[in-house]
Amino acid sequence: MSEMPMLTTHEEVMFFDTDCAGVVHNLAYLRMIETCRTKLAGLLGMDLAGMAETRLFPVVVRTEIDYRRPAKLGDHLEIHGCLERVERARFWCAFEMKVKGSETVLVSCRQALAMVQMPSGRPQRLPADWKEKWQGE
Amino acid sequence: MSEMPMLTTHEEVMFFDTDCAGVVHNLAYLRMIETCRTKLAGLLGMDLAGMAETRLFPVVVRTEIDYRRPAKLGDHLEIHGCLERVERARFWCAFEMKVKGSETVLVSCRQALAMVQMPSGRPQRLPADWKEKWQGE
Amino acid sequence: MSEMPMLTTHEEVMFFDTDCAGVVHNLAYLRMIETCRTKLAGLLGMDLAGMAETRLFPVVVRTEIDYRRPAKLGDHLEIHGCLERVERARFWCAFEMKVKGSETVLVSCRQALAMVQMPSGRPQRLPADWKEKWQGE
Amino acid sequence: MSEMPMLTTHEEVMFFDTDCAGVVHNLAYLRMIETCRTKLAGLLGMDLAGMAETRLFPVVVRTEIDYRRPAKLGDHLEIHGCLERVERARFWCAFEMKVKGSETVLVSCRQALAMVQMPSGRPQRLPADWKEKWQGE
Repeated sequence: MSEMPMLTTHEEVMFFDTDCAGVVHNLAYLRMIETCRTKLAGLLGMDLAGMAETRLFPVVVRTEIDYRRPAKLGDHLEIHGCLERVERARFWCAFEMKVKGSETVLVSCRQALAMVQMPSGRPQRLPADWKEKWQGE
Repeated sequence: MSEMPMLTTHEEVMFFDTDCAGVVHNLAYLRMIETCRTKLAGLLGMDLAGMAETRLFPVVVRTEIDYRRPAKLGDHLEIHGCLERVERARFWCAFEMKVKGSETVLVSCRQALAMVQMPSGRPQRLPADWKEKWQGE
Repeated sequence: MSEMPMLTTHEEVMFFDTDCAGVVHNLAYLRMIETCRTKLAGLLGMDLAGMAETRLFPVVVRTEIDYRRPAKLGDHLEIHGCLERVERARFWCAFEMKVKGSETVLVSCRQALAMVQMPSGRPQRLPADWKEKWQGE
Repeated sequence: MSEMPMLTTHEEVMFFDTDCAGVVHNLAYLRMIETCRTKLAGLLGMDLAGMAETRLFPVVVRTEIDYRRPAKLGDHLEIHGCLERVERARFWCAFEMKVKGSETVLVSCRQALAMVQMPSGRPQRLPADWKEKWQGE
């Protein structure tokens, strides 16, 4: 059994990430989390170019996100992502966002994903070896 | 005690809402939900022009969203939003998305919001009469 | 020869349209223009559901946009779009954005589009009757 | 007189960058260009945290963009940006996007920017030493 895959991505807050309340917009955090999640999927063996070919895509089926503290223009953010749990037909990833060099969690998020064959939209079982390799506790 | 405020908004799925899996991207549903939520906030007495003045903003503190069925380019969507529950310092809204004329729920979502005074970022108590007017069960 | 197709769409400025400079972000105007352009394409006989089938898409090949005055949170905007000119393999649309009830132009924009067959990416000639029907100026 | 500032940023095409035509959406390129432009502005002495304080912002007043070839999911893109020309009250930046390792230009873009004092919205003259330092030809 391997250690659960994990990964950190980095973002600098741009104008398009903020809104007129002066802080990062709630949708922008989820876009940053998608970048982290996609690179995490790469660690699990899914690569973007391959998906475009096979049209077997990881699809978000549930998101839970808590916005605790706001990030601001120019902040350097770290997004820590990990595989949290593998079920038969879905897997859960967890994410935490912090300003670089700080321990304060700005945003925490969990997402469940399924593997879906397009264009039929039919969900697929996850590879059998995932549960063996990454047995979530 | 009044009936809980509710409201329906309408969207037609545009190219910018979709991704290369051929269906609506998970972030686009949340943008549509924000439009519904903002108009729902209008029913609660918050108007956008007023917020820009007072800098007292409704801020999303938690989102839970389930993606059940995908929407596609050109679909006419209905987003049904309602105030679900009022607490001392936060209120919950609930949303359901359907294709117009269909009863199938594509997306269901709950969001908790707080009223936050910017730029200090300090959360404010909700108006006392909200609990009286809209007593969530 | 018919009159050139034209059309007006309406938008209310939401939080996700603005940035921390306090006004609408430059990308958000282009998203609103895309909605107008897509409905204008409907007048020309292209419908979104049909495109998803035939995979023949109108593709933006050039944008020119001038940002003259900013829009703000809660503004009610009108986007006026028209077909401006038909060439052999591309057509030009023009757009103006104003606050409802005002004559001041906030944004003016021209876009050239080609009809592209996907997934090959090959541009197609425009239908022969377009030039007859909508002879540019 | 110094050499004109220039800079390259890197992006990997994510799902949120694409649309159902199977390639990168026209707005996504402009978001990537904004990231490059903002880092280029850093070379000119403007930093994001500083802007949030002084509320003196570089504002896009005109964009011209040509979409020549599409990028696809998973492509590694390079965005080359440079200061092109300094006028009294605006400056021009130019951008080219390529797939890493390729010489084919996918997108070329020019943008004019003004320095605008918010919330008044008044444009400011550019610093006098800009013309001396970076005399556009």
